[in-house]
Amino acid sequence: MTGFNKLALIGVGLIGGSLVRALQRGNYCRHVVGCGRNVENLQQAMELGVIDQYTHDPAEAVQDADMVVVAVPLGAMDSIFAAIQPQLHPDAVVTDVGSGKATVVAAAQAHLGAHLPRFVPGHPIAGTENSGVAASFAELFENRKVILTPLDNTDEQARERVTTMWKATGAEVITMSIAHHDEVLAATSHLPHVLAFSLVDTLTRIDDHNEVFQFAAGGFRDFTRIASSNPQMWHDICLANREAILKILQQFNTDLAMLTNAIEQGDGATIKTVFERAKAARDDYCQRFLV
Amino acid sequence: MTGFNKLALIGVGLIGGSLVRALQRGNYCRHVVGCGRNVENLQQAMELGVIDQYTHDPAEAVQDADMVVVAVPLGAMDSIFAAIQPQLHPDAVVTDVGSGKATVVAAAQAHLGAHLPRFVPGHPIAGTENSGVAASFAELFENRKVILTPLDNTDEQARERVTTMWKATGAEVITMSIAHHDEVLAATSHLPHVLAFSLVDTLTRIDDHNEVFQFAAGGFRDFTRIASSNPQMWHDICLANREAILKILQQFNTDLAMLTNAIEQGDGATIKTVFERAKAARDDYCQRFLV
Repeated sequence: MTGFNKLALIGVGLIGGSLVRALQRGNYCRHVVGCGRNVENLQQAMELGVIDQYTHDPAEAVQDADMVVVAVPLGAMDSIFAAIQPQLHPDAVVTDVGSGKATVVAAAQAHLGAHLPRFVPGHPIAGTENSGVAASFAELFENRKVILTPLDNTDEQARERVTTMWKATGAEVITMSIAHHDEVLAATSHLPHVLAFSLVDTLTRIDDHNEVFQFAAGGFRDFTRIASSNPQMWHDICLANREAILKILQQFNTDLAMLTNAIEQGDGATIKTVFERAKAARDDYCQRFLV
Repeated sequence: MTGFNKLALIGVGLIGGSLVRALQRGNYCRHVVGCGRNVENLQQAMELGVIDQYTHDPAEAVQDADMVVVAVPLGAMDSIFAAIQPQLHPDAVVTDVGSGKATVVAAAQAHLGAHLPRFVPGHPIAGTENSGVAASFAELFENRKVILTPLDNTDEQARERVTTMWKATGAEVITMSIAHHDEVLAATSHLPHVLAFSLVDTLTRIDDHNEVFQFAAGGFRDFTRIASSNPQMWHDICLANREAILKILQQFNTDLAMLTNAIEQGDGATIKTVFERAKAARDDYCQRFLV
């Protein structure tokens, strides 16, 4: 059988909601139970037809589920794994969607016990700056990549079920090591978010920032779009993937200090070299990945 | 009369080309002469109907022109003003579109002599990451802002002609001081460009950057869009508006160092405060300016 009798969605937000919506297009889930803390969001998920019922209790949600998708902020993973473990059906497959894998895997190792081989760490490389089930949509994962970071003892059948699920959303599924995932994401996602938040924060503390913002144009709007992302979620990512983020952030700080110095010294050659190298790389990235 | 008998466009690129295209919708210019160095670009401008003739000589271009628009990178302003001054018709109005006003005004003061009162420094707050006349389009300035930074002795009639011209493109025209313009643009445009170029450059120097880029998602694409901008133009801006850029860049460096330290220390409260403040400001900016 492809598809699930009962999918337990722990965390009914943009990612989890979009996953279920994508799967529902192919009647992939017979029954979906949502679990979360925000009643309003859960009721909205009911009205939107994303979930069939809801509970605030993760342990209750996973009872008799054959697929458990944990789509909560990284900081909540540990307590979710601890809560669900006693109630997991022996055949249940568990996966997550966290943007940093090392801490999620550590939490799974700490709490899932004998169920660990049926846990498949995953991360869909997709999202928007919006949060909550109202922002979810079935097409979010189409032509996007989903990275799985299985452990040495991850069950092959469990991995296959998670792979098949993501393929059904229109995504391409890729496998890599936990450490490599965390470094790649620190560079391409976490660092840009930190910079966007930090830039907007710097500007808010200019005396006349309300006036300043009105002269912002399209470049600013696009550059700062990700600064509208969920602060709690990104706070969790910064703490959970701290080491990889710090490594690339320190490299960036060094490079930016060099560029700042070049501007200060009027060193046009250095400025131009950096800008030309960046433009070439960015144009090449757009061409190769058709974005 | 509104409109011009002969508009001399020095620099036939995205901004200059879009300005003429916008004006042509209302038959605002009887004759447009383009001036530039790149023959291919100038011929393309002819084919697109943006200009009626072209020359490589700025002095020749401005002969008998009643409106002269200087739309070259900031580093070329000085030599353009020096070249055109002897050939300016006494009634000609001169304006520019430079993203930093202090150095443009200094160049005008150095070279325009008695014509200085008929020079109206201007800057349309609009653009895309693309360059050249092929990227120009008539709608670029619709509902955008154009900032004029007139001098104490700027001729009222000249200022009025430039204002009327920009209003004809669908833009709103605002006046502010040179210093304030340069600080506002450093914060909302120049700093984001420096950060985007610098981030992409940092990533290109990761060992496996070709592999890394393929996992970049929508946030990365939008955040780095402006890193595809013209390196020469942005090199010029960094040098021309150096002081204002350094001031806000140093503030940003301080703020980012603080945030880096918070990540290093696992100081979640500080991280969350910064992210929440940034999100609130960014959401508010979107709401107020309907972007």
